[in-house]
Amino acid sequence: MAKSHFHLHNHPDNSHLRWSAAIPPVLTVPSGSEITLELPDGGGNQITRENAAAGTAISAFDVSKADPGIGPIYIEDAAPGDVLRVDFLAIEPTADYGWTGVFPGFGILRDDAEFVGGGGAPKIYDLGRPGEKNWVADTGYVVFRAGDRERREEEIRIPYRPFLGLVGVAPAEGEHSMIPPRDTGGNMDTRALGVGSSLYLPVEVAGALLSLGDGHAAQGDGEVCGTAIETRMRATVRVTVEKGKKAWVKSPWVLTAEPDAKPAGREFMCLGIDADLAAATRKAVRGVVDWLQAEKALGREEAYMLASVAGNLRMCEVVDMPNYAVGVSRDLGSMTDD
Amino acid sequence: MAKSHFHLHNHPDNSHLRWSAAIPPVLTVPSGSEITLELPDGGGNQITRENAAAGTAISAFDVSKADPGIGPIYIEDAAPGDVLRVDFLAIEPTADYGWTGVFPGFGILRDDAEFVGGGGAPKIYDLGRPGEKNWVADTGYVVFRAGDRERREEEIRIPYRPFLGLVGVAPAEGEHSMIPPRDTGGNMDTRALGVGSSLYLPVEVAGALLSLGDGHAAQGDGEVCGTAIETRMRATVRVTVEKGKKAWVKSPWVLTAEPDAKPAGREFMCLGIDADLAAATRKAVRGVVDWLQAEKALGREEAYMLASVAGNLRMCEVVDMPNYAVGVSRDLGSMTDD
Repeated sequence: MAKSHFHLHNHPDNSHLRWSAAIPPVLTVPSGSEITLELPDGGGNQITRENAAAGTAISAFDVSKADPGIGPIYIEDAAPGDVLRVDFLAIEPTADYGWTGVFPGFGILRDDAEFVGGGGAPKIYDLGRPGEKNWVADTGYVVFRAGDRERREEEIRIPYRPFLGLVGVAPAEGEHSMIPPRDTGGNMDTRALGVGSSLYLPVEVAGALLSLGDGHAAQGDGEVCGTAIETRMRATVRVTVEKGKKAWVKSPWVLTAEPDAKPAGREFMCLGIDADLAAATRKAVRGVVDWLQAEKALGREEAYMLASVAGNLRMCEVVDMPNYAVGVSRDLGSMTDD
Repeated sequence: MAKSHFHLHNHPDNSHLRWSAAIPPVLTVPSGSEITLELPDGGGNQITRENAAAGTAISAFDVSKADPGIGPIYIEDAAPGDVLRVDFLAIEPTADYGWTGVFPGFGILRDDAEFVGGGGAPKIYDLGRPGEKNWVADTGYVVFRAGDRERREEEIRIPYRPFLGLVGVAPAEGEHSMIPPRDTGGNMDTRALGVGSSLYLPVEVAGALLSLGDGHAAQGDGEVCGTAIETRMRATVRVTVEKGKKAWVKSPWVLTAEPDAKPAGREFMCLGIDADLAAATRKAVRGVVDWLQAEKALGREEAYMLASVAGNLRMCEVVDMPNYAVGVSRDLGSMTDD
């Protein structure tokens, strides 16, 4: 089959602000296709250099327009019970700036007195443009300008690690906010979703109905203040329907390809998503145990032990309320099966 | 000052099973001393190859003898309000085996039907002896023998990453179980505490009263089944009293030196310890924000933003109930101050 390549632009007709299987697809593609998408930032492009400088960026922000998804994309042959694999092929900023802001009611410290009303002006970062000296894809870092410069000897550099915060398929039931992630993915804010990684999502409806958005130039595990280095992105992904063979995928799974990984490289990570942080943790651990049992010929107890001695619990996001996303990543090492 | 070197043997007189400032010190050393300790394993050496093979290891286990501390060590000049720095210089097994077990009431899945009564025989690992072909410090990995070997092509290798699960100083108030960690440290089961790393603990009593134990040959973040690769260890640490200059240390801090770190290397990690997992997370984030404010000349909001874009939330242990330990690690990068 010849590889197909599609484009999806950032246009209100291609964008949605609720998760629902009732939203009609804006593009239909065969399994195996590559799609290039122009994505607004996670704030729906509401934060600009100008309103940040004017001091109105946070107060005028309309949260109902946050985390828009570009899509949905109908993938032919995808049916409930299948798994959709999304390979991230390219991710690059299309704005020359990114931002981080503290919004009222968002962030892990949202109830602390100093943050309960939200923050001041968003932090603005220069990302440059292709061909410019400070183009972030060439420099490899983002400068965080901060603090009492008199007391500071060096600038703070954040490693450039672009990824998409929002990647999900439509849930079978109901209509839902874009903010919290779910077992079908969505706003997972999981920094493993960068170029070279593969995401596996359980398909709940015909065609899967994939949407993407919320580009981040960098973020730590947790996204603790509620935002990352938010920016508009151009992203290219390949979508592949996997029939039957990955029945253990009941929540998002990632085969990671993080730039800071060891040479051995890729890890499998299972996400547990729940409104209770300990319950999310248990889900993630059970996911890894299920995988080791199903795919690695381990008994359930020894799978649990192996997760204990070689699996790492990460808080991928702790701010997209009401749901937390906890990941258990497992070194593939000698267990590669891909 | 000439460097002093002390030895502490594994003897009942040097061991304690409660945290209390009332326990008299077994050794007194000046700040700057190096101490080599012989440590029982986290199960108080109750699990053996023989009782594991006989199937009695878990059922006969006396949990009141778990997590013994070797100490306390009185460090001269340490006073309440100071910070005790513990540098890990050497950690090596003194048994030729390690073990992992699932105990009733322990582990993140302790309420799941299949684990509620605990597990079967502990997993036993061969660690070898110095000079032997399979000496773990030479091979660099531990073999996890598991599963249906017929279906398995390769053995599972766990990277050898020895560290001490239990490192703490006496709390000013009360008498406490050895199982949960506290702001004064203890059974933190935090895998960053390996050779090359430095731990900072807030001192609450005169002499600090340091104790150590619970050697692990490897463990993932979380220690999800409740145990790691448990083994007896010989450990050498250097203890240094830091006066005044680290007032932001209100809970355990680690300057890490993990073998899988990037070349840039060491990270600062603040631990948040609490019976509520979300509260532990908030404490860890506030700790990093406090540090960035106090030591890095950042405003409080921009410190929070920086933690969001460059700090990583890790669940260091989720099983030493009632307290969880959550870490926020921050790449030092251009912010090194040590």
